[in-house]
Amino acid sequence: MKKVLVLGAGQLARMMDLAGSPLNMDVKAFDVRTNNVVHPITPEHKYGGLAQGIANADVITAEFEHVAHDVLAQCQASGKLLPNSQAIKVGGDRRLEKALLESSNVANAKHIIIENKADFERALTQLELPLIFKSALEGYDGKGQWRLKSAEQAEAIWQEMSAFIDAATSSVPQGIVAEKMVPFDREVSLVGARNIHGEISVYPLTENHHTNGVLSVSVAAPINDALQAQAGQAFKKMAEALDYVGILAIEFFQVGEQLLVNEIAPRVHNSGHWTQQGADTCQFENHLRAISGLPLGSTQLIRPTAMVNILGEDTLPVETLAIPSLSVHWYAKEKRAGRKMGHINISGDTELMLAQRLTQLAQLLDKQAFPDLAEFASKYLAKVS
Amino acid sequence: MKKVLVLGAGQLARMMDLAGSPLNMDVKAFDVRTNNVVHPITPEHKYGGLAQGIANADVITAEFEHVAHDVLAQCQASGKLLPNSQAIKVGGDRRLEKALLESSNVANAKHIIIENKADFERALTQLELPLIFKSALEGYDGKGQWRLKSAEQAEAIWQEMSAFIDAATSSVPQGIVAEKMVPFDREVSLVGARNIHGEISVYPLTENHHTNGVLSVSVAAPINDALQAQAGQAFKKMAEALDYVGILAIEFFQVGEQLLVNEIAPRVHNSGHWTQQGADTCQFENHLRAISGLPLGSTQLIRPTAMVNILGEDTLPVETLAIPSLSVHWYAKEKRAGRKMGHINISGDTELMLAQRLTQLAQLLDKQAFPDLAEFASKYLAKVS
Repeated sequence: MKKVLVLGAGQLARMMDLAGSPLNMDVKAFDVRTNNVVHPITPEHKYGGLAQGIANADVITAEFEHVAHDVLAQCQASGKLLPNSQAIKVGGDRRLEKALLESSNVANAKHIIIENKADFERALTQLELPLIFKSALEGYDGKGQWRLKSAEQAEAIWQEMSAFIDAATSSVPQGIVAEKMVPFDREVSLVGARNIHGEISVYPLTENHHTNGVLSVSVAAPINDALQAQAGQAFKKMAEALDYVGILAIEFFQVGEQLLVNEIAPRVHNSGHWTQQGADTCQFENHLRAISGLPLGSTQLIRPTAMVNILGEDTLPVETLAIPSLSVHWYAKEKRAGRKMGHINISGDTELMLAQRLTQLAQLLDKQAFPDLAEFASKYLAKVS
Repeated sequence: MKKVLVLGAGQLARMMDLAGSPLNMDVKAFDVRTNNVVHPITPEHKYGGLAQGIANADVITAEFEHVAHDVLAQCQASGKLLPNSQAIKVGGDRRLEKALLESSNVANAKHIIIENKADFERALTQLELPLIFKSALEGYDGKGQWRLKSAEQAEAIWQEMSAFIDAATSSVPQGIVAEKMVPFDREVSLVGARNIHGEISVYPLTENHHTNGVLSVSVAAPINDALQAQAGQAFKKMAEALDYVGILAIEFFQVGEQLLVNEIAPRVHNSGHWTQQGADTCQFENHLRAISGLPLGSTQLIRPTAMVNILGEDTLPVETLAIPSLSVHWYAKEKRAGRKMGHINISGDTELMLAQRLTQLAQLLDKQAFPDLAEFASKYLAKVS
């Protein structure tokens, strides 16, 4: 039995455990809030602290990129951490991420790193408005972001940003990346795996929709070969540059037929949850296969599949379960406004069937809890009809 | 969170837990050997004895039909047991099973219940040879069965059978059912669910192959409508007669275009494991949905899928994982000769693709551990080519 320790004890560790048990893997999770090693499905049981968790593990991985650097160092020193700590750090710091994109020659939005007011002013003059400013550390799900549309906002935003930088308590200094806001056609992401032997396998590109900066819907459907190849090339360059092992997710802005990398996540990713029902091998299993030296499982799309995030709700109308090819995945978390509580996967033999089922789902769900779903489903239905 | 207690802590309870966690169900299992309630994935943690398990559960179910009658009575008295204790008892006693088949008017093999030598002699004269004798209690996987091909064997077999009956220690007297051996064309089974509201949904008929009396391969592929309807009718009659709630499996002998019931299993069933990859909703989830008052999930076949049992082995050649659309499910059990240790699910977009992958799999696996697989795969490939 392979023993896996996951840094982080949230839903991603939980779903790794559910995928790992059938593979004869014993998945434990290090809860960074309590410093306890727990079993993800029955977290009431503790298995000591980090040192013991590291000692007991055959392989260590992470479910999030904002792991404290001392924890990463301790894991890296054990020789068991995959992906390696540098790859995790790159995913957790937009400055390193941008440096990697540049050195790997992967297309991304024009940007400037801001450490002081002079940098900020340089960004205002050298990048075209509108601009988006993103904190270098801890910036996902719409937190630590500012949008500047006209020069009059500049001083107010600078005040907010510099207060944000000063308030940071991390051992690594906080910073800001300024980017030209890309007038993109859509957001897509690529989730793929690279294993210990350098074998790479990527899933089909997924189209993502955000509501208030948080992913709400991802759709995986047959994709244009050229676009898929372009994304695959970016994946290969970055995964190889990082000597990456495990699942890596890349978010892109699509502008016409070009993909610009928005950000990467060195872990299994919300936009890959559809793989649990829509792909031969789900991302959680492929992550475990990759870090355990096993062959990767096929990443082929079985049939068009969408993932709908459940935010801030801990129940659904029971009739939703009567929709064919629909699976609900709850994370057993305490209800809190806006929190990712679970997700729904829904498939159809064709995109039309998927769009019809999404429409049916949107009609059953609470409009306040799923504010954009009905509109999304109706547009999608119109597109594929 | 719905709390489910499963009577029995084997692989079926384990797979119910893996299917139940995403549905926000807390699945515990009562280990009948140790009288402890455990968590199926981390059985090192105990949660008290049966009384406590019953008190803590919202619903109680079983993973096997040979539950001691006092345990069943205790669970039934709680008002939480589904399926009901009578349905479980029928599945655990061939005499009751035959009585149900007769009273529900469901076709089955001609038979006589044997309690003494006079019954035995009546069976010899009233049923045509060859005969098969099956113990009424605890008779699955080829144990407690005798085949009589010629009259000269009769006395020796009677000696063995009467010793077997006398050796029984169950609170219910052991008995024997004599059946005319049916010259069947193939064995098929139907797995289906009936929920609290009487809603029924059945999976496609599966073709089953046994090796030394133990299931080795099941194949689910598109099936002839008339045959499927015939099986569905038998399911409906029996499930309604038993006021059954949960997954019920029915094994049939197919003779020409007729299906004769061989036996029933009042639980999730080995011949339904393919549903984990090959169906919209797996049998474990549908069992939990059924007993929890939820709508049933679709039982539609996604694509042709086969299940291969892993018997007495605790590793597989690593290259098997490189076959596309292949999933391994280990049960975390200690290795023992002939023991069900896990299973492999393998799918193809077409039956031809499935047969090719099965052939590839058979070539990689150890011939002694999977003695009939290569021959099965080669015949299947010839049939669908």
